[in-house]
Amino acid sequence: MIIIENPIELFNICKKENSKGFVPTMGAIHKGHISLIKESIQNNKITIVSIFINPTQFLENEDFGQYPQKKDDDIDICKKENVDILFMPLADSIYGINEPKVQANSITSYILDGFKRPSHFDGVLNVLLKLFNLIKPQNAYFGKKDAQQVLLVDKMVKSFFMDINIIKCETIREDNGIAMSSRNIYLDDISTKDLIKVSQSLFDAKAFILKGELKSENIINIIKENIKSMDVNYVHIIDKAFKKCNYVRISNNIILISVNIKKINYIDNIWI
Amino acid sequence: MIIIENPIELFNICKKENSKGFVPTMGAIHKGHISLIKESIQNNKITIVSIFINPTQFLENEDFGQYPQKKDDDIDICKKENVDILFMPLADSIYGINEPKVQANSITSYILDGFKRPSHFDGVLNVLLKLFNLIKPQNAYFGKKDAQQVLLVDKMVKSFFMDINIIKCETIREDNGIAMSSRNIYLDDISTKDLIKVSQSLFDAKAFILKGELKSENIINIIKENIKSMDVNYVHIIDKAFKKCNYVRISNNIILISVNIKKINYIDNIWI
Repeated sequence: MIIIENPIELFNICKKENSKGFVPTMGAIHKGHISLIKESIQNNKITIVSIFINPTQFLENEDFGQYPQKKDDDIDICKKENVDILFMPLADSIYGINEPKVQANSITSYILDGFKRPSHFDGVLNVLLKLFNLIKPQNAYFGKKDAQQVLLVDKMVKSFFMDINIIKCETIREDNGIAMSSRNIYLDDISTKDLIKVSQSLFDAKAFILKGELKSENIINIIKENIKSMDVNYVHIIDKAFKKCNYVRISNNIILISVNIKKINYIDNIWI
Repeated sequence: MIIIENPIELFNICKKENSKGFVPTMGAIHKGHISLIKESIQNNKITIVSIFINPTQFLENEDFGQYPQKKDDDIDICKKENVDILFMPLADSIYGINEPKVQANSITSYILDGFKRPSHFDGVLNVLLKLFNLIKPQNAYFGKKDAQQVLLVDKMVKSFFMDINIIKCETIREDNGIAMSSRNIYLDDISTKDLIKVSQSLFDAKAFILKGELKSENIINIIKENIKSMDVNYVHIIDKAFKKCNYVRISNNIILISVNIKKINYIDNIWI
């Protein structure tokens, strides 16, 4: 595995290779990321992983300075997983002054997780546009857990006619059902029990749907009842264009939950 | 020459060819465009010209509906110049709903020609990002006449790590010195005389500089004196990062003039 800090060096190496898979991360690599890496290694000649805590996707009052960092562990994991190139740039080499920016569409990015984080997805799309252009992967891998993110990235790639497949990978869960997340390190016994309720309510909802309950309002009410003791941001059922649906259609919808536990935001979802 | 309307068809054809030159236009092709086409044909295996009157770069009160169109003449010229692919898309095939956008940097795009046209350059960059990604040219050709445009495009390509050379081509002029422009069709005898004064004042300024006059204030005053009878928007001397310069440095600066003649905006410049 080679570790590269310099974007231009990465660009020059990537230019020579056609079959590339890319897994962008902010580090603190967990089993969710590892499943993306494995998927990429299986389907591409070369796999590039980036670790970059992107400053532009954090708002002023957020945990940019405190975001979990595990640099040495991350390097070890990537080596063990046979990653070919690990890209760990400094912010100054990615961003310059007076640059144009990508602006996510406000209708689809200022809702859900973007409602309390306006401009968050601008930063996500901006850094991904840069990373995609540096690497020119054929395939880029994202978890379904960050549903809004992967849908917005997919929309950007299609809108800008970029020649990249956005591969949406299944959410990886702990044995207790909780979705893997770098922020799970903040969980204690009580909050773990709460998060288990969140994932369980999604599994239950899917079971209801498969039994024939298709009315969104009913499904949402059942979920809200299950997690009523918690600080719930939202429970929604949307399609892949972010439209709320009165009735669920199989293969077309996502049920999304967002809760706050001790000031930390946790999201989970299930793709129907 | 093949004429393509469908972006995906263009994308698939362009994917097969490595040495591509691209000349984006809004049609009404004149000798300025032709010089870009000739330059591209000389230096690339395949030359693609686009004709697309891009709605997003016009503001609401501007001449989008009235922008000069000469479709048949344009096709004839491109054929004669041995263009390989002429791309003439419909707006619906370029733009979708709820798309992310490129936003030009406000510090460098809301000045000069962007001062009275806020968001104009957002539209320019947005459509060019799409066209660049569809075509993936090695070289894209722009006239120095639209100095702010070519500098902002160059900045975008570098900021987004796009693998394209932005080739800045000399302004082509009428025998009387006037810079070629699609909007020159609106000129009558009196306004032609005014525009001759504009170009002449730039040539004179350059001559002063080469004789040793390097103070920007003095150079600007001489130009303003020469065109004082006209409705002048601005006369500026900037560097390629849009910084105003107190003293001119050879190979580093551009003198820009913008005037209104019968409500039509004309720009001209000279690269020192």
